[in-house]
Amino acid sequence: MPTFVEKLLDASERNNSLLCVGLDPDPAQMPIKDIAAFNRAIVEATADIVCAYKPNLGFYEGLGMEGLEALRKTLETIPKSIPVIGDAKRGDISPTADAYAKAMFDVWGFDAVTVSPYLGRDSLEPFLRYADRGVLVLCRTSNPGARDLQDLLVTSPYDRVTMPLYEAVAMKAAAWNLHRNVGLVVGATYPDELKRVRELCPTMPILIPGVGAQGGSLEQAVRNGVDAQGRLAIINASRGVIYASRDPRSFAGAAREQALKLRDRMNLERQQLRVG
Amino acid sequence: MPTFVEKLLDASERNNSLLCVGLDPDPAQMPIKDIAAFNRAIVEATADIVCAYKPNLGFYEGLGMEGLEALRKTLETIPKSIPVIGDAKRGDISPTADAYAKAMFDVWGFDAVTVSPYLGRDSLEPFLRYADRGVLVLCRTSNPGARDLQDLLVTSPYDRVTMPLYEAVAMKAAAWNLHRNVGLVVGATYPDELKRVRELCPTMPILIPGVGAQGGSLEQAVRNGVDAQGRLAIINASRGVIYASRDPRSFAGAAREQALKLRDRMNLERQQLRVG
Repeated sequence: MPTFVEKLLDASERNNSLLCVGLDPDPAQMPIKDIAAFNRAIVEATADIVCAYKPNLGFYEGLGMEGLEALRKTLETIPKSIPVIGDAKRGDISPTADAYAKAMFDVWGFDAVTVSPYLGRDSLEPFLRYADRGVLVLCRTSNPGARDLQDLLVTSPYDRVTMPLYEAVAMKAAAWNLHRNVGLVVGATYPDELKRVRELCPTMPILIPGVGAQGGSLEQAVRNGVDAQGRLAIINASRGVIYASRDPRSFAGAAREQALKLRDRMNLERQQLRVG
Repeated sequence: MPTFVEKLLDASERNNSLLCVGLDPDPAQMPIKDIAAFNRAIVEATADIVCAYKPNLGFYEGLGMEGLEALRKTLETIPKSIPVIGDAKRGDISPTADAYAKAMFDVWGFDAVTVSPYLGRDSLEPFLRYADRGVLVLCRTSNPGARDLQDLLVTSPYDRVTMPLYEAVAMKAAAWNLHRNVGLVVGATYPDELKRVRELCPTMPILIPGVGAQGGSLEQAVRNGVDAQGRLAIINASRGVIYASRDPRSFAGAAREQALKLRDRMNLERQQLRVG
């Protein structure tokens, strides 16, 4: 079995893409009612141009059992060659963390999961133990409130070095990366912080939400997010792609068109990085 | 409709109890296989001696759809007069946070929910908006890894005041408490930190896990956790109560016996506080 990072690099190279499509069903915006059918159409229209898919569990949980059943069906329709990131932002103490890791990796079968760092290393151990799966640690989130905690200047009680909390999280995540399965989540809405995190963690995958509806610059996300080989940035777009059209007959084609545009803009920026 | 705090104070006074029982199904420890039947027996045996119940969603999610169906049935069996805390430790940006709040409060119908503070105020707004529900913010968790982030000394970039991160979270939570529906989570395994948080937030409910299997002192949890009137500490025990016996014929009675012991020890400590 390939690891998450191997699967990611493979899909990214095969599809020449840094684009991750977020599968976030919102009944108020969906052109057809059946969530699983909607997601299947989006996946079929984009599977050759993405590096990953990312369903956010909140949207499915918000729709109750029916939503979770739709998630189950959706996961069946995604080709095995494309990694699926379960965006759940879980974080709990053991033994609950064991149960969550089991839920995300064994029950749902995700290739990677997003987790919160607030509870510290032992809360992530049950996830980290799955060496072939990715564990993407929230570092600098894309929302305005990210500043409330993540910008606080922290001083380690051990070595007295001072830095913003999000940088401390990036450094801790690097220290937790014994199985080479750790990554980070940094919002495109904070390009300077993304650049800093990439400097601190030159070889880890970074999931970058916030281009599209949230207004982060796609070009800066590429420039500041990729590794030295122009890889390992997973740039997510959800609403801007999957709700490109509300027309039940043409929404999938419109989603493909948008996804292609985003992928090609990202690749143009990558080319300029290589030239520059 | 009473608010979460009203419902909590009412159940706590009626049952003369600070004890919250955690409904955390673990097939390896359960004396009977049917989760909903197990939980129903525990609830029927303890409903007159607790102030709240707290199912942790991780255990149910770890069992797949069957687990979630058991959670649904369990919630139906808990008397309406006892508040139920959905321990989910959610935290995400809007619009996902809206979906999670809907899932926890509307779909599941919990009276309160645990949330992570890492994403800041706007990530909690969708929960806080439900003025009649409780929002319990992770502050100082009960696990060893709590030290990794929560003990870091933080300096606000605005006022240069220095304190450990968990204290900064307590103060922020107090500032977010416009609807009087915010509480905190502080582990009994850190009694000094619990005392400090109670000083910072004298009138907020504090959920206190970590007495039983995790080794926190029940007496210190009472002494350092209650408000000036000896109330608003929600002291949780899960494994020590619900798995008191593995005998399928007598486990519910054994759970009641353990719950009674814990409740009475807590009340003895409360009495000594009043005398002292």
